[in-house]
Amino acid sequence: MEKIAKLIFASGEGSADMLYAAGFSTPDEILWFDPGKAPTILLSALEYSRGKSSARPGVTVLRDSEFSPGARKAEEVVLEIARKFKLTGFVVPETFPFGLADALLHKGLQIRPVMGSFFPEREFKSEAEMQKITVSLRAAEAGLARGIEVLRESRIDAKRQLVWKHKLLTSEILRWEIDRTMLELGMLPTGTICAGGLQGAQPHNTGSGVLLADHPIVMDIFPRSQSSGYWGDLTRTVVKGTPYPIMQKAYDAVLEARKLGESLIRIGADPAMIHNRAAEYLGSAGFQTGCSDNGNYGFFHGLGHGVGLEIHEMPRLSPRGARPLQGGEVVTVEPGLYYPEWGGIRLEDMVYVSPATGAGIVLTQAPDFFVID
Amino acid sequence: MEKIAKLIFASGEGSADMLYAAGFSTPDEILWFDPGKAPTILLSALEYSRGKSSARPGVTVLRDSEFSPGARKAEEVVLEIARKFKLTGFVVPETFPFGLADALLHKGLQIRPVMGSFFPEREFKSEAEMQKITVSLRAAEAGLARGIEVLRESRIDAKRQLVWKHKLLTSEILRWEIDRTMLELGMLPTGTICAGGLQGAQPHNTGSGVLLADHPIVMDIFPRSQSSGYWGDLTRTVVKGTPYPIMQKAYDAVLEARKLGESLIRIGADPAMIHNRAAEYLGSAGFQTGCSDNGNYGFFHGLGHGVGLEIHEMPRLSPRGARPLQGGEVVTVEPGLYYPEWGGIRLEDMVYVSPATGAGIVLTQAPDFFVID
Repeated sequence: MEKIAKLIFASGEGSADMLYAAGFSTPDEILWFDPGKAPTILLSALEYSRGKSSARPGVTVLRDSEFSPGARKAEEVVLEIARKFKLTGFVVPETFPFGLADALLHKGLQIRPVMGSFFPEREFKSEAEMQKITVSLRAAEAGLARGIEVLRESRIDAKRQLVWKHKLLTSEILRWEIDRTMLELGMLPTGTICAGGLQGAQPHNTGSGVLLADHPIVMDIFPRSQSSGYWGDLTRTVVKGTPYPIMQKAYDAVLEARKLGESLIRIGADPAMIHNRAAEYLGSAGFQTGCSDNGNYGFFHGLGHGVGLEIHEMPRLSPRGARPLQGGEVVTVEPGLYYPEWGGIRLEDMVYVSPATGAGIVLTQAPDFFVID
Repeated sequence: MEKIAKLIFASGEGSADMLYAAGFSTPDEILWFDPGKAPTILLSALEYSRGKSSARPGVTVLRDSEFSPGARKAEEVVLEIARKFKLTGFVVPETFPFGLADALLHKGLQIRPVMGSFFPEREFKSEAEMQKITVSLRAAEAGLARGIEVLRESRIDAKRQLVWKHKLLTSEILRWEIDRTMLELGMLPTGTICAGGLQGAQPHNTGSGVLLADHPIVMDIFPRSQSSGYWGDLTRTVVKGTPYPIMQKAYDAVLEARKLGESLIRIGADPAMIHNRAAEYLGSAGFQTGCSDNGNYGFFHGLGHGVGLEIHEMPRLSPRGARPLQGGEVVTVEPGLYYPEWGGIRLEDMVYVSPATGAGIVLTQAPDFFVID
């Protein structure tokens, strides 16, 4: 007779599913399994004592050595789990390591991947989870405020370069001022984008070198709380000095697209529709999307994504968006326009789909403005 | 006829193999494949332009959309790669996602995991890689120096609590002082341990709350360079005030065990032998290892591990250590003693196995002392 349990083999640092299931983070891979309402983790001597005090309530913590004495590999431990619980196989996340799956298959166990969400409930945040995300978002806003402050304090030299505290202001310096603000709040920044001028035309370019006046500076700030593991995500784009008319026009269009997207978020709304409406708006405002030898231009990424224990998680607001919004999701809305000739504009808020009212609630409180004197 | 290529599907942030192969880091999964001396990465519109300018020399950068128009899933893109290059299958890292492997197997492709190192050459560092690791180690040493400075500046109140700048000194404050020092050097700290007293008896407890005089404070500092991706790793344990005799005795034994381990590292040495010799020394010095209801005590983790683009990589200095050292490895040597009654002592250096001389070269320059006045 078939008897199947859930199984994860991952580190808490590498897998949000493991962090969610175990309730605490380990740098190395551990085993979690659940034969049915009895979630259990197996820990090495190195982690056992900490796991006993930190594991999610309801999770049984066992020593891997006690469970399967002498076992030296995850494969042997899983086989022992199967024997003890009379299991014929396991369902695993699609990210489960193929090497281990292959070894277990060869031992005669069924191993079936769950495509998509392993814990679908992770897409629907509790009030407590939404609050944790908001804490991280507030830290991102504090970081942004510090970045704006630095840009306000900067002056423009004869070459139209930014100067702060008697030194040329670089992306690196601006990033550090933002990051240190968030670090003091217990957040881990892992690649804050401060991309000026043409670098901003590459959405994931983190930015380097001297920042120039009169050109957009994209600040995309996504800290993770070191205590809760939840992320915040925030983008604003500003110009110090005088933007060229095309930049102001693009900023206005992106801001309108973001507001349009936010207004469409509610229970029952189709994520692909929301993306498409924002994209159509940008096209109708005169901004074409396409690709040339220089790379892509226009609006060429998804409008938004879920945020939680992963910075990018389900659901996606993109042409591939699958199911209608159900309530409890926290998603970004972040339209952008990118042109290799002059740079990029991206504006990103976070929105909570309220299970209580069905409406989208914008969690972001950072102000919207483009030009800094 | 069988024709097999190498294949990786991972993010640069989640996979050191991908970072090594692609030469730059992406937050989302990308495809890398090599049908034989023609390594290629496929990038979305979001990453294409950045990839063109940042990829490792010799790597061809293609748009995923151009390569397989209309493909919406990695599975479809891989099938198209197989068709275009007339491949019958792929070898993949053991961490390759099982969901994708399973889908490709069902389409008739061979998918074989490489157990252990996918790029065995990653274990053997070039001079340039060793220098990058050393840069990160120097940053860890700068962080440690700041931590020591804070402890020196602290005073002890009537309750034997540490006080710094008129406030109780906590693990969190000490960690922040260490981390900010490293952040200013372009490093990303991802879980710096500042564990005092009984918390130090759990090797991976990061520490929280007020620090006490007369008890060991374990500082395990492992920053990653934001530019190179290479890690450094350093641990020192100190007491502010007057240690109990058992703590001083344990410190002396751990220091001797570390020096013994370091002296045994050379080309041809067996990693398991090095671990065992250090463990035997600690036992002979009177420190027993075992486990009780309170958890494990004594020396219950591996003596060391390789460090490179991963903080924990091959080879391991542990009873499971496999092959003799060959030259080029960078490993930690980090014996420790942990007792739930009073805390823990761990001392960690990094050692380079010189291909030129065959000897172990201690890269760490941080001083050794236990008591801070």
